[in-house]
Amino acid sequence: MIHVIKIGGNIIDDVTKLDDFLNRFAKLKGSKILIHGGGKLATSLAKDLNIEQQIIDGRRITDAETLKITTMVYAGLVNKTIVAKLQSKACNAIGLSGVDGNIIQSSKRVHPTIDYGWVGDVEKINAGFLQSLIDNGIVPVISPITHDGKGNLLNTNADTIATEVAMVLSETNEVNLRFCFEKLGVLTNPELDGSWLRILDKKEYESLKEAQIISKGMLPKLENAFRANESNVAKVEICHADYANEQGESFIGTQII
Amino acid sequence: MIHVIKIGGNIIDDVTKLDDFLNRFAKLKGSKILIHGGGKLATSLAKDLNIEQQIIDGRRITDAETLKITTMVYAGLVNKTIVAKLQSKACNAIGLSGVDGNIIQSSKRVHPTIDYGWVGDVEKINAGFLQSLIDNGIVPVISPITHDGKGNLLNTNADTIATEVAMVLSETNEVNLRFCFEKLGVLTNPELDGSWLRILDKKEYESLKEAQIISKGMLPKLENAFRANESNVAKVEICHADYANEQGESFIGTQII
Repeated sequence: MIHVIKIGGNIIDDVTKLDDFLNRFAKLKGSKILIHGGGKLATSLAKDLNIEQQIIDGRRITDAETLKITTMVYAGLVNKTIVAKLQSKACNAIGLSGVDGNIIQSSKRVHPTIDYGWVGDVEKINAGFLQSLIDNGIVPVISPITHDGKGNLLNTNADTIATEVAMVLSETNEVNLRFCFEKLGVLTNPELDGSWLRILDKKEYESLKEAQIISKGMLPKLENAFRANESNVAKVEICHADYANEQGESFIGTQII
Repeated sequence: MIHVIKIGGNIIDDVTKLDDFLNRFAKLKGSKILIHGGGKLATSLAKDLNIEQQIIDGRRITDAETLKITTMVYAGLVNKTIVAKLQSKACNAIGLSGVDGNIIQSSKRVHPTIDYGWVGDVEKINAGFLQSLIDNGIVPVISPITHDGKGNLLNTNADTIATEVAMVLSETNEVNLRFCFEKLGVLTNPELDGSWLRILDKKEYESLKEAQIISKGMLPKLENAFRANESNVAKVEICHADYANEQGESFIGTQII
């Protein structure tokens, strides 16, 4: 069984929360892969360097300067900080971006009206290499920087990477996919921490989406979650980072069904 | 046979020169490893962020903010840019820092009078993992960020990493170590491009050092080169990046003997 865990939101920005999460992740038994976003570090570095950031529909527009920043922050600082911490917790992690060992090839996004810049949509996962690392007891830690095979780096959504990695590995493994963030699960009221759904099916999701109860930022995450659920992935869950390694009755979060 | 190639100097700062070098590196037949420095990018980023840089005897003092910058630039931007370019040249590269797969563990430098900050001296190379990558036709591209096993990243001299990697792999392989930079070799007159030595032995080196003909910046490189030469490493050379893949009579550079 392989655990594919995505960590995002403000967990990465908070040293204590990140360390707590990594303790849990390191203790998680069995094969595992971690996919991380970049938190607000890229945004604050861009601000310090006076590089203006454009966000459309929750997606960053990645011009050439912004691509440099996300590569430095995601593939450099965040990735290596996480791997160093995991190594100190007896977890033999390896930090990878999509370009390393050609694990994730993507294509530059083409959109009829919006130029997203250096943003990539996942095309192909090198499952064989990931599998060989896992089989050797090595834990891949993946940053959301991919490449187009023509020498260009591309900024890619980390939820999508987690989903694609889980899906391709589920062809030959039992895979559990967990999206961990700063909420207890999918909330029916963003103001109420306790309003998380224990389970969520596609029909209910569609009606909550129509009623605009599920908010903009959650939509791409849930689209990914349902896509994984409709594939061979055994279990798809959305939960707080504090429950990253909880199993059975001690688990709190939303299971996608 | 394994080629261990260090690339440094101003080659990394120049897009065209770097691309030329990577074409040569990609064409180099047989097993190979690339170790890179960071050029002047880290210095210029520090300047843009108003972080003051201290250099003592050609070595950067790495305070906490500078460590973040070097990690972003070396392990992030430079490493992933190089790997993306190699992947586009049909070279299956993997970008690694010392923390990844625990390939290079180091210890924070202790010095009687100078506090170098977050600088690490190499302690242990994970030769087994590097060998397994090479045996699978994967080309490691190593950035000079290591770790202490206690969760801390450490800035480390790239020449030293190249030397240590070459030395440990030479225990079970024939290894050629080449330091590539912007000069034609070890010059006897820094103002004269054509003054490179075809060969250099320890005795001549010592006398050139005493006469201060070999300058400060070259000393740590040559100390490393002689250390490698005195070990099992088959061949140690210092040359221009343009000659990185030249063999036999078409090679121009300084051979350490």
